[in-house]
Amino acid sequence: MTLSLYSDEHYMREALKQARYALEEEEIPIGAVVVMDRQIIARAYNQTEKLRDVTAHAEMLALTAAANHLGNKYLQDCTLYVTVEPCVMCAGASFWAQLKRVVYGAPEDKRGYRRYGNLLHPRTELATGIMALECAALMQEFFARKRK
Amino acid sequence: MTLSLYSDEHYMREALKQARYALEEEEIPIGAVVVMDRQIIARAYNQTEKLRDVTAHAEMLALTAAANHLGNKYLQDCTLYVTVEPCVMCAGASFWAQLKRVVYGAPEDKRGYRRYGNLLHPRTELATGIMALECAALMQEFFARKRK
Repeated sequence: MTLSLYSDEHYMREALKQARYALEEEEIPIGAVVVMDRQIIARAYNQTEKLRDVTAHAEMLALTAAANHLGNKYLQDCTLYVTVEPCVMCAGASFWAQLKRVVYGAPEDKRGYRRYGNLLHPRTELATGIMALECAALMQEFFARKRK
Repeated sequence: MTLSLYSDEHYMREALKQARYALEEEEIPIGAVVVMDRQIIARAYNQTEKLRDVTAHAEMLALTAAANHLGNKYLQDCTLYVTVEPCVMCAGASFWAQLKRVVYGAPEDKRGYRRYGNLLHPRTELATGIMALECAALMQEFFARKRK
């Protein structure tokens, strides 16, 4: 099996690279990329510790960077790839951005938005479970290190 | 009746000043302040149009500014005053910040977080309806202008 250049797996692999940067910096390892017309227009990883700012989640930083890139706050032709199920805050931001698609890797049963219902925009398509094991493994590695 | 210097009304009046700056700049007129130990440590108003960024709600900007001021991402001794009921995104941010209190003015039945349940942190106290008429009047003025 070859990995398609424009598959969800391809872009999730890029989000995972971002998540690994977070892990290296002792941040909760979540990464995100925003894709439009097959091009990655924004990349970000969680920086809540570094920036001492609870709003500095990977998704928030990526959405802001994508909007800056496009000069448009609406991201209706964009897909957000993120390694872990977004929280309520990030789902809310995705709603306002009116994203075309949200694709996440690992579920997050405790802090993920889905337990509160569908908080995404009605027009936003959702795909889940893309490279979920790899995405979850990074989180497990982080919390295992923390417990030591 | 005299207005207490440290009453919720006093701080909401400061949030309203911020909302009026938003109105002057043709932004949806929502303002916020963050208070700790009776001092206002952050002030912000909605700037989604100016910054072309859906995440630039008054609350988000105020929470980030307060965290920067304190050098601490947790705002457990802080109260957020905001003129209108926060959206899901801002409620989610308030959750992460573990605010002591959230005080809002006017309810927002369509886009407010409360229709999704209590999204605030379990330790966060909530007070609503402070200067609600004044807060709502600004919103009505904005949308009346838009319709013209």
